[in-house]
Amino acid sequence: MQPVNSYSLVEIASLIKGQLIGNGELTINALNTLECAVAGQLAFLANTKYLPQLAKTKATAVLVKAEFAKDLPCVAIVVDDPYLAFARLSRIFDWRVQPSPGIHDSAHISASAIIDVAAVISAGVVVGDHVIIESGVFVGANTVIGNRCKVGKNTRLEASAVLYDNVCIGEGCLIHSSVILGSDGFGFAPTPDGWVKIHQLGGVRIGNDVEIGAGTTIDRGALDHTYIHDGVKLDNQIQIAHNVVIGEQTAIAGCTAVAGSTKIGRRCTIAGLSGIVGHLTIADNTHVTAMTLISKSVTQPGQVLSSGTGQDAHRNWKKNVIRFKQLNEMAKRISKLEQKADNFSSEG
Amino acid sequence: MQPVNSYSLVEIASLIKGQLIGNGELTINALNTLECAVAGQLAFLANTKYLPQLAKTKATAVLVKAEFAKDLPCVAIVVDDPYLAFARLSRIFDWRVQPSPGIHDSAHISASAIIDVAAVISAGVVVGDHVIIESGVFVGANTVIGNRCKVGKNTRLEASAVLYDNVCIGEGCLIHSSVILGSDGFGFAPTPDGWVKIHQLGGVRIGNDVEIGAGTTIDRGALDHTYIHDGVKLDNQIQIAHNVVIGEQTAIAGCTAVAGSTKIGRRCTIAGLSGIVGHLTIADNTHVTAMTLISKSVTQPGQVLSSGTGQDAHRNWKKNVIRFKQLNEMAKRISKLEQKADNFSSEG
Amino acid sequence: MQPVNSYSLVEIASLIKGQLIGNGELTINALNTLECAVAGQLAFLANTKYLPQLAKTKATAVLVKAEFAKDLPCVAIVVDDPYLAFARLSRIFDWRVQPSPGIHDSAHISASAIIDVAAVISAGVVVGDHVIIESGVFVGANTVIGNRCKVGKNTRLEASAVLYDNVCIGEGCLIHSSVILGSDGFGFAPTPDGWVKIHQLGGVRIGNDVEIGAGTTIDRGALDHTYIHDGVKLDNQIQIAHNVVIGEQTAIAGCTAVAGSTKIGRRCTIAGLSGIVGHLTIADNTHVTAMTLISKSVTQPGQVLSSGTGQDAHRNWKKNVIRFKQLNEMAKRISKLEQKADNFSSEG
Repeated sequence: MQPVNSYSLVEIASLIKGQLIGNGELTINALNTLECAVAGQLAFLANTKYLPQLAKTKATAVLVKAEFAKDLPCVAIVVDDPYLAFARLSRIFDWRVQPSPGIHDSAHISASAIIDVAAVISAGVVVGDHVIIESGVFVGANTVIGNRCKVGKNTRLEASAVLYDNVCIGEGCLIHSSVILGSDGFGFAPTPDGWVKIHQLGGVRIGNDVEIGAGTTIDRGALDHTYIHDGVKLDNQIQIAHNVVIGEQTAIAGCTAVAGSTKIGRRCTIAGLSGIVGHLTIADNTHVTAMTLISKSVTQPGQVLSSGTGQDAHRNWKKNVIRFKQLNEMAKRISKLEQKADNFSSEG
Repeated sequence: MQPVNSYSLVEIASLIKGQLIGNGELTINALNTLECAVAGQLAFLANTKYLPQLAKTKATAVLVKAEFAKDLPCVAIVVDDPYLAFARLSRIFDWRVQPSPGIHDSAHISASAIIDVAAVISAGVVVGDHVIIESGVFVGANTVIGNRCKVGKNTRLEASAVLYDNVCIGEGCLIHSSVILGSDGFGFAPTPDGWVKIHQLGGVRIGNDVEIGAGTTIDRGALDHTYIHDGVKLDNQIQIAHNVVIGEQTAIAGCTAVAGSTKIGRRCTIAGLSGIVGHLTIADNTHVTAMTLISKSVTQPGQVLSSGTGQDAHRNWKKNVIRFKQLNEMAKRISKLEQKADNFSSEG
Repeated sequence: MQPVNSYSLVEIASLIKGQLIGNGELTINALNTLECAVAGQLAFLANTKYLPQLAKTKATAVLVKAEFAKDLPCVAIVVDDPYLAFARLSRIFDWRVQPSPGIHDSAHISASAIIDVAAVISAGVVVGDHVIIESGVFVGANTVIGNRCKVGKNTRLEASAVLYDNVCIGEGCLIHSSVILGSDGFGFAPTPDGWVKIHQLGGVRIGNDVEIGAGTTIDRGALDHTYIHDGVKLDNQIQIAHNVVIGEQTAIAGCTAVAGSTKIGRRCTIAGLSGIVGHLTIADNTHVTAMTLISKSVTQPGQVLSSGTGQDAHRNWKKNVIRFKQLNEMAKRISKLEQKADNFSSEG
C-alpha cells in the first residue's frame, strides 16, 4: 500500500561506514526485526537477548558487531553500534512523500509575515503578524501560528499544532500534531473573592533538533520565557509549565508533568507518567523511573530515582495499604520491643 | 433548547423486547434517573442501591427486572438487564442532527482520494493522497487525514482529529476530537553527541467498533504497525506508544499511558491514570485499579492488580513516607527481635 | 521583538490604590522579578524569602508592604498585598494585540447562528446551527463550535478549541487551544459480545470567569450536564469525565483526572497528576498534594490529603517496595513479638 525505497547493500554499507561481508549487489527495500524479516529486508542485532534469532533469520542482510559476524545465514554489515546504524538507515527508508514548497491557496498569511520560498504551508494554515518562517520549513494542515513567532530552517510542524504569540523554534525540530506552544501558564493571585489572573507576558524559546510529541503542551513564561534547549526529546502528552528550563539532550517520556519554574539539567531521562513539582533544580544525568513523583531538588548528578509501591494482587495490596497508614506507629512499636529486649539482655 | 425525540411505550418495549406492564400508549421523550425523572420520562433500576427511589419515582415508566415489577407508581417494562436496555435506548433519544452526505466547499481533497457519495466531509477538512473513505463515514470540521489512510463504513471522526499517513480504521468506529493517530513513536538511538531519530516506518491499524476518546494519541509503529483490535474502548487523553497491541473488547479509562511494544490481552479493564511500561504482555481479563503502575508482565488471566498507598491526611502520610524509606531496615530489626525472642524461649 | 506598554508610576499607583514613595513621574515599561529587573521595570516582594534581593534590585520601583518600604534603592509603591497588585498590573502590560471585531471571510457560520457584531471570529472557524455568540467574544483560528452552543460576553476561545453540540459557556472565560468540551462520556453497558454504547445525551455548562488550560477535555453528561461553576481554574491536560460537578473557585493543576459523577466542592486546590475516582463527594476547601489518588469521599472540609511514597534512590526504593508487599505480614510479626514480650514481663 505504501511506496518502497530500494538500495543495494553496497550503498547501505557505504552510508553507515560498515564492513560488508557477502554479496553487495543484493537489494534491500525495508528494515525489519531479525524475527520478522523476509527476503529483501535488512535486520539488526542490537541486544544479545535476540542472538538466538540471528541464525534463523530470513533477512537478506543483518547489521551486527564484528563478534557476531560469522556463520550467518545471510549477508553481514559489520558496524560498531548496530542500533545506531539502524537508526541512521531508518531515514532513507522513510517512504512518506514531502510536498513541494509553496503556500496553499487556503492558507491565511498575515501581510507582515515573511515566509521563505522554500517552505511548505499546507491547507488551512493561519499565520499571524510579524512571523518569520525560514527555508525548508513544513507547516502541516490547519496549524495556527500566532503573532511574532519564528520557525527555524527545516523545522517541521505537523497538522493542527498551535503556536501562540511570541514562540521561537530553532532549526531541524519536529513538532507533532496538537502540540500547543505558548498557552498561558497557570498563575493566579488568591483573594477572598476568587482568583485574579496573572497575565503571562513571557514567551517560549525552543532550541535546535528538538522533537515534541503529539498533544504535548508548553506554557509561555510569566515574565521571562520557558526554555527547551537543543536536542531535547519530549514524547506525547507531556505538560511543561511556565518558566521551566529543560537542558540539552534530556529525554522525557509520555504523560509526564513538570510544574512551574523547575530547571531540569542535561542528558536526563525521565520515564512516563512522572511528576516533577515546581521550583526544583534537577542535576544533569538524573534518571527517573516510570510514574515517580519528584518533590525535592536533585543536587548530585547521575542518580536514579523512583517512587511508588510496585504492582501487586489487589487483595494483598489492600491489606498492605492499611498497614502503610500505620507505619509510623509500627516503627515506634519496634523501637519499644528493641528496648525491652535490651533491658532483658542487660538484666539477664 | 434541544430537539426532542418521542416514542410510545409500546414502541420502546418492542425495541428492547421488554414486557410492558401498564398503559403502552403513553409517550416518552427522554431517559432519566429514578431520582430526577419527571412525567414523560423513562427511568431504570440497574443497581439495587437505588431500590428505595423506585417507589417514589415521578417517571412515566421504568425499566426493571421482573422481581421489582410490582407495586410500582408507574408503567413497568420488564427486561433481563435494565442497564443494557437503557444503553440500547440511549441511541434513539440521541437528538443530535446528522448532516446530509456531501463534501463541504471548503474541504481540500486530494485528486487521488476516493470518497464515497454517502460520506459527510465537513468544513475545513483536509484529505491526502490515495485515501479511501467509505459510505456512511462522517468527518468533522477541520479534521486532517494524511496520505494512504482508510476509514471504514459508518465510522465517525469528530472535529479536529488528525490521521497521519498510513492509518487504517475499521467500520463503526467513533474517533473523538483532537485524537491523533499515527504520530511518531518515541524512538532514538543514544550517541555521545545526542539522540539519533529512528524514523517510524509502520502505521496504525484500528479494528471495527472501536471508540477513542478526545485527546488520545496513538503512535505509528517503528517497523510493524500499532494495533487496536475490534471493540476496544479508549477513554480521553490516553497515550498508546508505538507497536502496542490491544486485544478485543479491552476498555481503558482516561489518562492511562501504555509504553512501547506492550501487548494487552482481551476483555481487560484498566482504570484511569495507570501506567504500563514497555515490552510487557498482559493476560486476557486482567483488571487494573486506578493509578496503578504495571511494571511486570501478567501471565495468569483474570487477576486484579493495584499499586499505590491510598489517600491519607497529609500530616500522617508525611510520617509514614519517612518510615517507608526505612522499611527494609525495619524488616531486619523485626527478624533480629524474633531471633532474640526465640533464643530466650529456648533458653527459658 | 514585542510591542511595549508604558505607564508612569503615578498611573500605576493609582490603578492599584497604592501609596507612592518617590518620584512618580518615572516610566515603567515592564514587570519583572527583584533579581532580574532592570531600569524601567517594576518588581515586587511577595515572599520574604526574597527579602535579601530587595536592597540590591536594579528595578525602578517595587511593590512592597509598608513594613519593607524603607531604605530602598528605588521608588516604592506600598500595598497590602504585593502579589495581588502584581497580578492586577500584569493585565496592563499584556502587549498582545486584540484584533478588531468581525467575521473572517474564511469562517463558516451556520445561517441560524447569532453572532454579535462586537465579536471576533478568526480564520477557519466553523460555527454550527442555533449558536449564540455574545459581544466581546474572541474565537481563535480553526476553532469549531457545534450546534446549540452559547458563548457569553467577553469569553475568549483560543485557536483550535472544539465545542461539541450543547455546550454553554458563561462570561469572561478563557478557553485555551485544543480544549475539547462536550466529547462523549465513557459509558458502556457490558454484554458477553462486547460493550454497548450509552449515548451521552447531556451537555456541558460552564459558569463565568472560568479558565480552562490547553488540551483539557470535559465530557458531556450522560443524562444531565457536566457542570463547571464560576471562577473555577483548570490547568492544562486535565480530564473531567461525564456528570462531574466542580464548585466555585476550585483550582486544579495539570494532568489531573476526575472520574464520572464526582462532585468537587468550592475553593479546593488539587495539585497536578492527581486522580479522583468516580461517584465521590469532595468537601469544600479540600487540598490535595501532587500525584495523589483520592478513592474515598471527603466529608470534612479543609483537609489536606496525600498519597504515594515520596522519591528515593532507586536501589533503596527497590528493597523497600519488596517490604511494602510484606507489610501486613510484618505487622502480624510485631504483634506476636509484643505478646511474647508481655508474657515474659508478666512471668518475670
